[in-house]
Amino acid sequence: MNNNWDAIVVGGGVIGNAAAYYLQKSGRNVLLLEKGTVGLGASKAAAGMLGAQVELTEVGPMFELARESRKMFPRLQEELKEMCGIDIELVREGMLKVAKTDEEKVHLQSVIEAQRSFGENTKWLDREETLQMESSLSDSIIGAMDIPNDGHVNPIQLTQAFSKSAVALGATVKEFVEVYSFTELSGKITGVHTNIGDFYGENIVVANGAWSARLLKEANINLPTYPVKGECMSVITERPLIKSTIFSQRCYVVPKSGNRLIIGATSIPNSFSEHVSVEGISSLMQASIDILPDIQRAQFERAWAGIRPQTIDELPFLGVHPTIENVFICTGHYRNGILLSPISGKLIADMMDGRTLPSYLQAFTFERLKGVITT
Amino acid sequence: MNNNWDAIVVGGGVIGNAAAYYLQKSGRNVLLLEKGTVGLGASKAAAGMLGAQVELTEVGPMFELARESRKMFPRLQEELKEMCGIDIELVREGMLKVAKTDEEKVHLQSVIEAQRSFGENTKWLDREETLQMESSLSDSIIGAMDIPNDGHVNPIQLTQAFSKSAVALGATVKEFVEVYSFTELSGKITGVHTNIGDFYGENIVVANGAWSARLLKEANINLPTYPVKGECMSVITERPLIKSTIFSQRCYVVPKSGNRLIIGATSIPNSFSEHVSVEGISSLMQASIDILPDIQRAQFERAWAGIRPQTIDELPFLGVHPTIENVFICTGHYRNGILLSPISGKLIADMMDGRTLPSYLQAFTFERLKGVITT
Amino acid sequence: MNNNWDAIVVGGGVIGNAAAYYLQKSGRNVLLLEKGTVGLGASKAAAGMLGAQVELTEVGPMFELARESRKMFPRLQEELKEMCGIDIELVREGMLKVAKTDEEKVHLQSVIEAQRSFGENTKWLDREETLQMESSLSDSIIGAMDIPNDGHVNPIQLTQAFSKSAVALGATVKEFVEVYSFTELSGKITGVHTNIGDFYGENIVVANGAWSARLLKEANINLPTYPVKGECMSVITERPLIKSTIFSQRCYVVPKSGNRLIIGATSIPNSFSEHVSVEGISSLMQASIDILPDIQRAQFERAWAGIRPQTIDELPFLGVHPTIENVFICTGHYRNGILLSPISGKLIADMMDGRTLPSYLQAFTFERLKGVITT
Amino acid sequence: MNNNWDAIVVGGGVIGNAAAYYLQKSGRNVLLLEKGTVGLGASKAAAGMLGAQVELTEVGPMFELARESRKMFPRLQEELKEMCGIDIELVREGMLKVAKTDEEKVHLQSVIEAQRSFGENTKWLDREETLQMESSLSDSIIGAMDIPNDGHVNPIQLTQAFSKSAVALGATVKEFVEVYSFTELSGKITGVHTNIGDFYGENIVVANGAWSARLLKEANINLPTYPVKGECMSVITERPLIKSTIFSQRCYVVPKSGNRLIIGATSIPNSFSEHVSVEGISSLMQASIDILPDIQRAQFERAWAGIRPQTIDELPFLGVHPTIENVFICTGHYRNGILLSPISGKLIADMMDGRTLPSYLQAFTFERLKGVITT
Repeated sequence: MNNNWDAIVVGGGVIGNAAAYYLQKSGRNVLLLEKGTVGLGASKAAAGMLGAQVELTEVGPMFELARESRKMFPRLQEELKEMCGIDIELVREGMLKVAKTDEEKVHLQSVIEAQRSFGENTKWLDREETLQMESSLSDSIIGAMDIPNDGHVNPIQLTQAFSKSAVALGATVKEFVEVYSFTELSGKITGVHTNIGDFYGENIVVANGAWSARLLKEANINLPTYPVKGECMSVITERPLIKSTIFSQRCYVVPKSGNRLIIGATSIPNSFSEHVSVEGISSLMQASIDILPDIQRAQFERAWAGIRPQTIDELPFLGVHPTIENVFICTGHYRNGILLSPISGKLIADMMDGRTLPSYLQAFTFERLKGVITT
Repeated sequence: MNNNWDAIVVGGGVIGNAAAYYLQKSGRNVLLLEKGTVGLGASKAAAGMLGAQVELTEVGPMFELARESRKMFPRLQEELKEMCGIDIELVREGMLKVAKTDEEKVHLQSVIEAQRSFGENTKWLDREETLQMESSLSDSIIGAMDIPNDGHVNPIQLTQAFSKSAVALGATVKEFVEVYSFTELSGKITGVHTNIGDFYGENIVVANGAWSARLLKEANINLPTYPVKGECMSVITERPLIKSTIFSQRCYVVPKSGNRLIIGATSIPNSFSEHVSVEGISSLMQASIDILPDIQRAQFERAWAGIRPQTIDELPFLGVHPTIENVFICTGHYRNGILLSPISGKLIADMMDGRTLPSYLQAFTFERLKGVITT
Repeated sequence: MNNNWDAIVVGGGVIGNAAAYYLQKSGRNVLLLEKGTVGLGASKAAAGMLGAQVELTEVGPMFELARESRKMFPRLQEELKEMCGIDIELVREGMLKVAKTDEEKVHLQSVIEAQRSFGENTKWLDREETLQMESSLSDSIIGAMDIPNDGHVNPIQLTQAFSKSAVALGATVKEFVEVYSFTELSGKITGVHTNIGDFYGENIVVANGAWSARLLKEANINLPTYPVKGECMSVITERPLIKSTIFSQRCYVVPKSGNRLIIGATSIPNSFSEHVSVEGISSLMQASIDILPDIQRAQFERAWAGIRPQTIDELPFLGVHPTIENVFICTGHYRNGILLSPISGKLIADMMDGRTLPSYLQAFTFERLKGVITT
Repeated sequence: MNNNWDAIVVGGGVIGNAAAYYLQKSGRNVLLLEKGTVGLGASKAAAGMLGAQVELTEVGPMFELARESRKMFPRLQEELKEMCGIDIELVREGMLKVAKTDEEKVHLQSVIEAQRSFGENTKWLDREETLQMESSLSDSIIGAMDIPNDGHVNPIQLTQAFSKSAVALGATVKEFVEVYSFTELSGKITGVHTNIGDFYGENIVVANGAWSARLLKEANINLPTYPVKGECMSVITERPLIKSTIFSQRCYVVPKSGNRLIIGATSIPNSFSEHVSVEGISSLMQASIDILPDIQRAQFERAWAGIRPQTIDELPFLGVHPTIENVFICTGHYRNGILLSPISGKLIADMMDGRTLPSYLQAFTFERLKGVITT
């Protein structure tokens, strides 16, 4: 076994695999270690929304990061398909963020204005226009923010595609390997201790989501993150019900191929449990029926949960360790992991290459929380 | 292949397997034919309630049949376990049929009176007494009919236990065999045509539930039955929530081992579809939370559906064909198939043996619907 | 419910759904009826090979049909993706039919000669050339027939894509509907009797595979077909093992995306059972390890079976009923259902349109077996 | 949340749950923490053999421990059923350890002699006698060691029964809680750090199998254990094939209810991977067909793997931490976890109670490996 890697990535979710892919592509010999099986944590529990505009209602660094990442998908789809044969099922049919109250309407209209000033394509639709676009929507809605450029992918396929493409390029992926702590030599971190022995690498990327904080303690950082359980369900309709993704205050409904709708997601902080609660499913059913009454007659397929990593200021960590120059941290993507995976992976590779980085990246370093992060 | 059977049973649900078991036990050489796999139709979709008193609110032949069958379970449990090693998981912890309105209360009290006059053990509990018995019940209930003698079994285990015990005694069970019609010789039915060829037998038992009517057309009977889809779900609680089975107007909740609750069941007539609807699950969730609020915090496990055979007068058919003396019919058990399986199987064997039959059996013959059943 | 269809298709496998798709596309209002769920019979049990040249070693009408169908896939992939969002995962990386004995080599070389005379692209590779192409092959092989134009698709995705595209165009698909026989009026067939009532249509397409013979008896044809069970398994390798599909005397190995290999298939005539046998899996393991030793170290994923319809002269039936002009028959595709689905569906639509049909179609009509098919 | 426990058990496998059960039964308030879900590690991957005599061919402390534990099962079955309704499916039909060579025969006969001198019931059967007992055995065997007192249980049910019975008695079980290290106060261990916060307890029981070594490092012990992957498969036969459990050099075959056979198990040291290999399944198939040829025609059901904890001297650790008096260690049961679970759980409770312990327990303390275990 080759045991001297250019980069060791800890975590086999969408973020870790994206990092592995871009690192291997940039010429490094990469080892990815995953404690369970690839893509079966938060990544599988996503609906795969690329909701740059729908999720981020404030213009700022996070919005820039999201826009950059969203842009990458069309080429990425071709690239990954070419590399490993997996289709990430990119759909670019837009989103509608519906309002049911005047308060919501006023809020959405201000968001529209802000995003437009920023050059984004979005506009307000009144009830009639909204129903014209999506006739299955409940007529209790009073209008919607129209976001033609947001879309979605298949999150499981995306994670697999990053992973298998990295492997096709020469990376090694090991499942059922748990990273416990770091190996050190003369004060320098040289690799990782795992349940099957030590692995040595020039650089370490910590990308194991809600489990990153635990590992980073071993590198003297108290990362202010916490797990947030999200529950989802899927249903199947007889005929296509919607073309756009529908987003309300209480849920979202994403139209996948095969007349499958993914309905998500609850948010239960501080839980690592992957059990699905009656309460969660029941509330998703009611919230989705409330905007799309025909869901009532749909076939229930299944329900599942995943644990997303959230940070105290709701921004991901994307940068080098404050004091250890060969440890990179890439976590805290919460609901935006799928959307942000290409840019996150790419920026990690760029950092390692010593390239000039976009200025907005400052917002995602550790310096922003200097007083908070104890090292 | 032995191809001359004493009895051929069509249908591998709980009823067909019970018939096969009692027929083989009575010394016959039995062949059971199932179009799919054993026990995966209505039988798996049951909660396994032995609800003689809870389901049947009118005293009459159906009530007598149910009481007789319920009595058989304790010995049956030992017998089947001995024969094939499968435990049918008999639980005899009683049922509570709760009332939420005065109207329901009045109705239940009259049922109690009638059943007591018939010698059954049941009484009215007021709210306080009910909550003393089951403290997790919602305090919106106003009382309950207490039925200490009803219980439940594991319906999948029961079906398998009948089947494997019949096999242990020498019966043959063939899966993926579809019976199309009957073979005849000189005006006498001699066996069945199937997708894998003909099988010959002295007697034929038609016990394929909602699919019986189709087959019986080939024997010149228009059986007035129809399919009723039933949807169920299971949830798991952290601690035991209830000891008794709880029955309300809108659902029942059966406490299984391992802190699992089975919640059932919807009734959707004239559907053969085994898909589970959002509407069905959503209504079961609400109805069960309504009587047991803690279900809200339970873990959702799964949902499923099965197709039960119902008859126009809501009584099963249990008897010999009106004009063909070696064709026996045993179907239409609707929600009571698990409860009625031992007595049904046993009576079919008794009929074939020419034994004296209980007088209440008249209520389940074809004569009762003479004007309706066209032959 | 609209109950007067232009065409009713019986059977929801890949053939039925292809027919529904081309019929709906040609302007008809189509109803497809499936007794279980769409695509879960023989269609799911295939590996999805488009083996026009590898499977058909004799030049003739079947070969022409296969070539025509294979040609359709590239455009079909785009068309279906556009229509319903499902990618059929077409891969065109060629096949290698390996020889292990001189006898096999001589046979393959004669096939190559015949196919080349017919304009097909194929050539013989000696051991060294073969191993250069696929270095994981066992060096016990002595050479291979190289078939660059054969490929494969995802059979489950293909079936779903035909089905959902038909629905997107306006067709209706009903699951859990079993067709029993035909409705007639004044000697003309007008529709079908089913378990949920009658449906009326101008034309009926019988496309329910191994179950077609049973239904056609009701239209006075004894179709000389029989079921052949096929067992498959899938394994996952750490790295891509092969690029081409590998075909030996005893098995085939198809490289799917995600480093998954599908290994198939056994042939067990006259069985409708979907159980997988130890013998079957064991023999597939041995046969595949024999040509690709690294499979030994692969991860076993799962095994499954499906029931394929075979005919006594090994040619499908593709044509109108000999005496009933509005009943079309499309079955008997055995191992070639996936490959032949587009041409079969298209020709059914062309027949119904009264278009001029290719002359090779004569080989698939009922006339070819005049003495055999009793009506 | 009560957060001050009498005992905290780390690990929700059969050993941890047995400990929780006996500890709660002895009057303690117990918290069990499991990193995934209860009973889904090594415990589910067992066949449930109670192979005191078949597995342990040398008389000694391990043999005594096993005999003591085996004795506990009959009463345990009743006790757990009573407590939580779960049947552990105890079967006491004996085992046959078959010999195929004279060398094996000689070895088995010496084992028989040793065990008999120790008072165990066992004898040699020649080929004829063996085939008389189990007529499905291959006639290539030359005889067998007959062990009438060994039996088996359902390992999943046993684990669940311990767990749910502990809960019924008042214990708390938390899933998806990972224990990282110990909390300390004034040099005394007071509880555990976990992914969802700290829990405090008087005593800690480390019972998390192959993951124990990692945790014990945090308590300054280098436990000389390593993981051994075991792969199993299950098949279903049409009729009962065997009554006894059959044990050969290369595999064992355990007859479960419902004509299911569990065939196990491979041994792959130093792997935490739960993937099942083609090689493993293929070898189990061949080894089992070799002794029971009819398995060839059986239906393959499924295959799975689990990670068992093995120690360098092949004896479990069962005792108090050498220097920390409130930390108990109970791991390293390898293939004997199911068999040894009751005695292990009971002895932990006895230790905590300060009861007199059997002398053979000395063999399982840390002192035995003084030079090896570094603290």
